[in-house]
Amino acid sequence: MQNILERRKETVKAVNAYLDEKLSSIDDPVMKDLMRYYPLMGGKRLRPLISWLVCEALGGKGEDSLSIGAGLEVIHNFTLVHDDIMDDSDLRRGKETLYRTHGTPMAINVGDALFARGYLIISDMNINGDEFRRLIKEVSGTVEEIAVGQYLDMDFEDRKEITEEEYMRMIRLKTAVLMRMAARGGAYAARASDEMKDAAGEYAEKMALAFQIADDLLDLTGGEGNFAGRRGQDIKNGKRTLMVIKTLENLSPQKRREFNSILGYPDAADEDIDRAIELMNDAGAIEYSRSLAKNLVTEAKESLKAFPESNIREELAALADFMILRNI
Amino acid sequence: MQNILERRKETVKAVNAYLDEKLSSIDDPVMKDLMRYYPLMGGKRLRPLISWLVCEALGGKGEDSLSIGAGLEVIHNFTLVHDDIMDDSDLRRGKETLYRTHGTPMAINVGDALFARGYLIISDMNINGDEFRRLIKEVSGTVEEIAVGQYLDMDFEDRKEITEEEYMRMIRLKTAVLMRMAARGGAYAARASDEMKDAAGEYAEKMALAFQIADDLLDLTGGEGNFAGRRGQDIKNGKRTLMVIKTLENLSPQKRREFNSILGYPDAADEDIDRAIELMNDAGAIEYSRSLAKNLVTEAKESLKAFPESNIREELAALADFMILRNI
Repeated sequence: MQNILERRKETVKAVNAYLDEKLSSIDDPVMKDLMRYYPLMGGKRLRPLISWLVCEALGGKGEDSLSIGAGLEVIHNFTLVHDDIMDDSDLRRGKETLYRTHGTPMAINVGDALFARGYLIISDMNINGDEFRRLIKEVSGTVEEIAVGQYLDMDFEDRKEITEEEYMRMIRLKTAVLMRMAARGGAYAARASDEMKDAAGEYAEKMALAFQIADDLLDLTGGEGNFAGRRGQDIKNGKRTLMVIKTLENLSPQKRREFNSILGYPDAADEDIDRAIELMNDAGAIEYSRSLAKNLVTEAKESLKAFPESNIREELAALADFMILRNI
Repeated sequence: MQNILERRKETVKAVNAYLDEKLSSIDDPVMKDLMRYYPLMGGKRLRPLISWLVCEALGGKGEDSLSIGAGLEVIHNFTLVHDDIMDDSDLRRGKETLYRTHGTPMAINVGDALFARGYLIISDMNINGDEFRRLIKEVSGTVEEIAVGQYLDMDFEDRKEITEEEYMRMIRLKTAVLMRMAARGGAYAARASDEMKDAAGEYAEKMALAFQIADDLLDLTGGEGNFAGRRGQDIKNGKRTLMVIKTLENLSPQKRREFNSILGYPDAADEDIDRAIELMNDAGAIEYSRSLAKNLVTEAKESLKAFPESNIREELAALADFMILRNI
């Protein structure tokens, strides 16, 4: 991914400058600072980047995608501010969470204000009024879906048995639908046909699902960067990943008991983690997840074939590959 | 107010039926129940009622105001769900708050979903796309203002000295701007001119400010209904009302000390409350607040003069009178 993001440094710069500007006209100085905290903390800007690339790939000017891309980025950040309260998180991108520095009431309130600001930013989009109305409906439906996804995620923590179908629905709602919206928004910005909007949305949704599954696979190797040395953390936390779901589904009762005796134990030793991974392998869960992620990337790239041929289309395809490359 | 609401029983019924319908198409059954809890709990439906009356007064059909009126009512309810967490409230309209029954994370999440649903409902409005875009900008700006108002309100709790200007700004942002939006939304629904939108907004904002001040005056008499027998509760809670601000501003240092020795003491005796009210009277604070509320109502009715003459216009004027009648 590094490579692709490296190549798009100028685009990310344009996004950051736009975000900075659109978050500068907030009346109250205290609210302004707090509202700027998360969105300007950095991040890969994947959503605005996807809006931009899709817009260009469909014949639009990248700049025209800034309103929808940055607006969705601000909405994404509103969900992060609230998620950090719900998940009781101390850190966000290596810094203290808003909820830790300013308490739950302020974090709720700043999140709400960011939600509204996201819509304000989107309202600057240069498309006709009727298309704008359709877009607002889609964005609002998407945010509601994210809330349902967040509910499912919280609900899963209290449940033992989760099916693959339930898991896929949860990650689709919690994370993939916003990527889909970013891609569709880029197509709106390019004033593209509904067929192109659908293709763009399919591409991004499949890519996001693949990324989520690949991200969980990363836990088995420890990975690089932030994750280095944190191998097996998900297992210790008892996180219900697709791999865990498939493992529990496929193991014999005896081995399942053994697996369950490791899953969710924060003090599990390295040998325990090794054994858990071995059991996951026995169950075919790792191979299953890996191949599902690969298939999703293939399908994502398949959707792109509806786009006119161009370098940007190839860049989008490469982005889908890179999304899972480091993890699989 | 009873009288006016009594006369508009059919309108309120139409609003309730519309809300019920617009909150029935939520996929997840658990989220659906929780999202319906606050909005369908009842309430006076003041905001949709104002949208409806303004729409009719400006030549539109009342039904055309349902999307914006009900959408804003749902947005109002999202703020209530979140406010109850921030204010640590046990009860809402006599029932347990969502935050008490389902915890902070779920209450945050349901509030977020309601926010999105409010926009979905507004998107059904039958106006042209460009007007719709302007409306979405206004609604989003309004919600951001409400968040700033909520921040100011929380900030005031930690501060001793608050000026009249700061107080008026807070109540304007926290409550009056949404009433303004409801009235302006009614004018949008009627496809009225910008001049009429402004007049409608002025009317509702002034009325809402008057109501807020009158509501605080109610604390001095104990009032009726829910408030009966709770005389002096605001004084015991140390709430910074306009009266308290004016009292602290106008009293001699000695009497101010005496007033401060009662303000904010939950166990203050009835005699203490009597003395505090006496001091408020000495300071001219009660008279000042009462006359400010009256003037605001006069100004609200003045704004209505831009409307064409009609029975509905008179009904709006009467609504403004009724808003403070019981309290002053």
